[in-house]
This record gives sequence, structure tokens and C-alpha cells, in this order.
Amino acid sequence: MSQRPVISFLSDFGPESAPAICRGVMLGIAPDAQIVDISHAVRKFSIRDGAYLLWSAVPWMPVGVHVVVIDPGVGTQREAIGILTGRGDVLIGPDNGVLRPAASVLGGIVEVRRLANPDLMLARTSSTFHGRDIFSPMGAHIAAGRPFADVGPSLDPDGLVALEFPRPRVTESRLETSVVFVDSFGNLRLAGIPADLEAAVGTLTPGRPLAVEFGATGGLATTTEQIPWARTFGERPLGEPLVYENSFGGLAIAANQGSAAARLGVGEDRPVAIRSA
Amino acid sequence: MSQRPVISFLSDFGPESAPAICRGVMLGIAPDAQIVDISHAVRKFSIRDGAYLLWSAVPWMPVGVHVVVIDPGVGTQREAIGILTGRGDVLIGPDNGVLRPAASVLGGIVEVRRLANPDLMLARTSSTFHGRDIFSPMGAHIAAGRPFADVGPSLDPDGLVALEFPRPRVTESRLETSVVFVDSFGNLRLAGIPADLEAAVGTLTPGRPLAVEFGATGGLATTTEQIPWARTFGERPLGEPLVYENSFGGLAIAANQGSAAARLGVGEDRPVAIRSA
Amino acid sequence: MSQRPVISFLSDFGPESAPAICRGVMLGIAPDAQIVDISHAVRKFSIRDGAYLLWSAVPWMPVGVHVVVIDPGVGTQREAIGILTGRGDVLIGPDNGVLRPAASVLGGIVEVRRLANPDLMLARTSSTFHGRDIFSPMGAHIAAGRPFADVGPSLDPDGLVALEFPRPRVTESRLETSVVFVDSFGNLRLAGIPADLEAAVGTLTPGRPLAVEFGATGGLATTTEQIPWARTFGERPLGEPLVYENSFGGLAIAANQGSAAARLGVGEDRPVAIRSA
Repeated sequence: MSQRPVISFLSDFGPESAPAICRGVMLGIAPDAQIVDISHAVRKFSIRDGAYLLWSAVPWMPVGVHVVVIDPGVGTQREAIGILTGRGDVLIGPDNGVLRPAASVLGGIVEVRRLANPDLMLARTSSTFHGRDIFSPMGAHIAAGRPFADVGPSLDPDGLVALEFPRPRVTESRLETSVVFVDSFGNLRLAGIPADLEAAVGTLTPGRPLAVEFGATGGLATTTEQIPWARTFGERPLGEPLVYENSFGGLAIAANQGSAAARLGVGEDRPVAIRSA
Repeated sequence: MSQRPVISFLSDFGPESAPAICRGVMLGIAPDAQIVDISHAVRKFSIRDGAYLLWSAVPWMPVGVHVVVIDPGVGTQREAIGILTGRGDVLIGPDNGVLRPAASVLGGIVEVRRLANPDLMLARTSSTFHGRDIFSPMGAHIAAGRPFADVGPSLDPDGLVALEFPRPRVTESRLETSVVFVDSFGNLRLAGIPADLEAAVGTLTPGRPLAVEFGATGGLATTTEQIPWARTFGERPLGEPLVYENSFGGLAIAANQGSAAARLGVGEDRPVAIRSA
Repeated sequence: MSQRPVISFLSDFGPESAPAICRGVMLGIAPDAQIVDISHAVRKFSIRDGAYLLWSAVPWMPVGVHVVVIDPGVGTQREAIGILTGRGDVLIGPDNGVLRPAASVLGGIVEVRRLANPDLMLARTSSTFHGRDIFSPMGAHIAAGRPFADVGPSLDPDGLVALEFPRPRVTESRLETSVVFVDSFGNLRLAGIPADLEAAVGTLTPGRPLAVEFGATGGLATTTEQIPWARTFGERPLGEPLVYENSFGGLAIAANQGSAAARLGVGEDRPVAIRSA
């Protein structure tokens, strides 16, 4: 069985032709590439949403090249970079933090380089579409076998723009966290893992009731709901919420065959505090 | 020309990264697979919509593996199953009815097996994302050449969860049917075929007027429209509706360059009765 | 490295299974094809939007077959055609103008043929889904190596349905143009190129203020905004608009990390006049 190079591809380009234009450029350079679109529906300009989706997806991808174009600073002084990871992947995108969390779950940063070699770019580069002109051809050349060192000079990893996801704070009796991402099911993905919550409230057993407080922000009042811990959606009545460990090992709140975001009126960045009920 | 294995893939996962995560898992096992996304925009948790889209799509797919994840009961007692069909395809998904109509148009059920072999799953399986942990790897192993019998023990096909699409009722002078699916054009796909309507009203000729009654449901009053039978959209003035045989051989109502659903105020499951006008 | 044939694919089919059905038909005929979806989210029935997206995408695609199904006249007298271009591509679709601008940027029309050979169609052709029954199999047979001449008899290129994008009008002191396309970022793509604007107002330098008048149409009053010329989005404050040369070499109006369409209340076909401020 031939081993076709894999290029994954994430952007905020939306449903029109920009992703296809990038795919066309990639295939012109690496005709055998297996291109896997991670998503092109990232909230426009949202570096953190892009970083989150990339971070959650790359561990399940074959080792390969991952091209990311969430790039509100295109054409400005922000650098274009490539990151070689411990697992052997190469991350390609802007230096705005979007690649950092993914690198950390792919074995960490081995080497960072500035994308500077014009031989690996399109002949003419625009000031507004580096996805097409720089990131896609660079990624495709790497996928086609070009050595990573050819992309450009080495950079100090410590100089990269940082991006950290929110972290939970464990007190003696409650976990203070927040909504990091709301997916299309309306599931609320929280900062932290079940062990963090257990550090605050003790052992979690299916059905154990928890008091979940959604904090005041931007005109929204504080609300508190009693929501049980559960192992899966179907343990709750239709439409009713649960707190659970999601399939990425994180804390989350969902509703059985419904949208927790709609049911609870809660969106991204809402503060959440959980204690025993 | 090499014969790459085809895996089709249908889910209600939406526009984020869940389909890509599953594709990544599949390509890690079957790097040469040609993955064909049927749709990931199925209405959340709608087993019938998923069954309908699968049923309408698989006859046009090459023989292969078809992975389906419309799975509101994930993590509960519902079984994970594989169905070998008369045409040689393997359907992979939950035992909630979503696979049944597709099996019937692929030559019928030859053999059903429970997906139980942990060697063909990911090493760790979550209780909320069997698409990634069980269905994708199982499908990819089959696509890569693993015998179907390896997935797990045989099951009695008669024990599978049933799913039947609505059926039309022919009376002497009218056809009683309903809207089974509304597509993104706003076309109303009805239960039944033209022969059913002819059994009720006689021969259908282009331009023949029909009285179409949309029944009362959920607060909506009964409305009746006179709509002609037509062969294609362009036989009607812009925006005007037609009753026709759609490209899948079924009865349908459309509007020329418009949305019949919007024009007529009609959605899924609305009762429809058609008689001579 | 094997050279897999590339088929690009553009339609207004939306998020359901119609694109997958066409891909299934293509792969049944050309199993090694690399299918690149350009977009299936074209505004329903909008031949010009489809023509615009195709025209802007094909120069970045490898030489191949491009299948286009924006086809409001399906099943009527409109012809189904194939166009061989100077670059060696074959465009496949309805003769409604949607293919014309793309042909002009692929080296021009070399030869036009009517898609008439039933051996290259599905055995049964419907009157409402030529994408599946005619365009996809024709495109796949060409991609798999069948000579273009086999699709059907030659047609006179002068007899094709015309489609021209709006053109700007340069007066002594202002450029009269209009919005040709609004993308998902809300960027307003205008008719014309920077040289047209320079012919009207003189040299464009970053920061130079321009008076942009959005004309009265359909109940909307004329509004005038002062918007500077800029090289890229980040040269403007957050949310503020710019006039610029977009990555396709055309004139456009965007907003830095925002939607110019929403910010300015401007949509497709709005007249735009630009002069010195």
C-alpha cells in the first residue's frame, strides 16, 4: 500500500472557494497528497477557536503536515512560521498563537523556522491571501519530501506569540472554570479535566448532583442550575443537561439530544463554578 | 489503475472538526482509502433524516464501506453493528434503524455482526464518541481488507431496530402521503412514487392540474393549492410550484428556481393529500 | 509519483447528499480521480455567482476537468456542453454562461462540444439531476482518459450563451463600478482593477482617502463614506474599512477583522462610485 503524504487543513475561510484554491495549489505541488479538511467554518478571525479545533484534532491525524490559516494579521509584520514537532509533524501557519497548543500535544516543539524561501512560495505573493501564496505551497513542498530546513531560517521558539487556553482554579470546595468552546451540538467545553473537579468536590459518581453556577458577564445575570454528573447523554431525560468527561478527556456540559448552550443560555467565555449540590 | 477502497461517511457532526478526526483515524488504518463525505449536516439526532440521505445516496456509490454516525444513544445499551449487503457493501453504525433502508437498496442484508472486536477499535474508547473510537476504525479495517467476520459475533437480522419511511395510502380518488424530507432547495420529497399517484388519479400528463391539500398539524391549518404535474422545473413560471417525479423516482413538490417549502409554508412530516383538480 | 487526474466540482447543491452522489458516480468511472470540491454553497440558481467563483478558482487548479452544476434550466432546451480550453482543461456543465469566464482565464476556448454520447452518461437520465446523470459521468470519463471528441458533436463557440461580469466605467474624476460578489468575510468585490481606479483618481498610495458613494437601489438611499486606500487589512483600525487590491488583482472593499458588507450595509449589485476625497 502506497503511503500518500497527509496534509490537514484548517481555516476560517467559510463555504466559498478559498479552501479549494489552496487545495489546488497544494495538489499542483504534491499531486498524491491526501488532503484532510479539519474545518473551514472556524469563527472568522478567532485565533483561539482555531487553536482549540487544531489542538483537539491533530492527535487523531496521521503524522503529516498541518496547514492553518486563521490569519487576521495577514500582510502585517506577523511572521509566517513552520514548527517541527516531536511526533514528526510540521505545522504551517502564522505566528499568532494558533499553532502552539497543537505543537504541545504532538510531542512539543523540536524546531521553528521562518517561512522565507521564495522558491517554496508562489511566484507572486499577495498581501491578503498568504494561505494560497505562502502557507499552502510551503506545506505541499514539505509533504512532497522537501526538507523542513529549506523553508527558511531557524527562529527561537521562546520568541513565538503565546496562546494559552483558560485554566481552571481549584478551591477547597469548588472548581472555577469557563466555557472554552461551544460546538455545533451546543455542548459546552470547559477548561479542566475531571480530576480538577474531583480535587474540588470529591469523587464523581454517575448521578451525583452538582451545583453549576454560570457567572455574570456582559449583562447576563448569574444563574445556578443543579446538574448531575453522568457518563453519557442517554443517562439523562431528553433535553436535560449533564456534566461529563467528554471524548477528549475534558470537562463538558451537554444536554441529552439537545443543545446545552440553548437550554442554559450559555456561550463561549462564560465563567462557570461547580460545587457539590 | 489502482483500485482504492471507498469509505463513504455520513454524520450529524456539523461543520467543526469531528468529521476530520474520524477521517484521520480512518487514514491511519487505511491510508489509501478514498473517503467520500455524504454529508455531515444531517439534522442533529435525526435518525430518519440520516436514514433517508443514506438510502438515497448509497446506490450511486461504488461498492465499499459506509460509515454512519447519527447516534443519539451513544454509550447506552444500543448495539454497534456492521451489515454485509447483497451488493458487497458493508454498512457500519449504531443499531437504531439508520442503516436499514440503505441495506434494502444494496441487495438486502446478507449478514449482521456486532462490532465487538477490540483489536479493530481504538485502544481507548470513550462513552460519547463511538464515531471516532469504534465506527471509523472498524470501517477502515474492513476497507483495508480485514474480513467482515472479524468485527464480532453474528447477530439475528430480525432483532435489529426497525425503521420504515412513511408510506402513501391510495384511495379510489386521492393519494394520502406526507413530506419525508425537505432538501436545501426547499423541495418537498413525499412518500410514494408516480405509480401510486396514478393509481389514485389516473394518468399523469405534463400540465395536468392537481389539488394538493396540506393537512392540519401542530397549529397549522389545512390549505389546498392547485399545482400541475410537470416533467421539470422550467415548465412552470418562475417561483411557481409543480408536482413531479424527482431524480430518485419518487414523488416530490418543487418550485421553479424557488423553495416550495417557503412558497407553500410546508415542512417535514406535513400530511399531503393529492387528487384531481 | 503517480499523476492522478483532477476533477474540480462546483454546484449550488448545498450541504446534503447531492455532491456526494455525484462524487460516487465519478469514482465509479474514474476510481483514481482526485476530486476537489470548489464549493457547493453557491447561492441557489445564481449563474453569475457560480461563474464568478469558478473564474476565480480555476487558475489555481491543476490542469484537469472542471464539472459545474448551477443549472436552473435542467431538463429544458438548454444544451449540456463541454469546453476544451487553451490550457488543456475541459469544462463540463450547462450552456447558461456559467463556464464562459473560466474558459477565458484558462487560455480561451479551443473547442466546444455538445454532451450527447449516451455511452458516457448514466444508463437512465432524469430530467432534474443532470449533475448526476450527465455532467459527472462525462467529466469522469474525460478524466479517466477518454478523448474529448467522444462526448458529442462540435458546436460553434459563437452560439454559446454569453455571460459578462459588470465592467467599471472610468470618467475623468471618478470610477463607476458595482459589487460583483460578497464573500463570507463580507468583503465587497468590485468590478475593475486598481489601474481602472488610478485612471480616474491618479496614483493610489497607502492611506490616501477616497470618497466612496454607494448608489441608491431598491429602496436604499445613496450613502457616501470616506475610506482610505490600503495595502492590507491590518493597516486600518479594528472594524474600519479599506479600499484595496485583493488577492485576485481586483478592486475590493473590506473591513479589518470585520464585515464590510455589514459595516456599510452594502450587498451584491450595489452601484459604487469612487473619487478623490
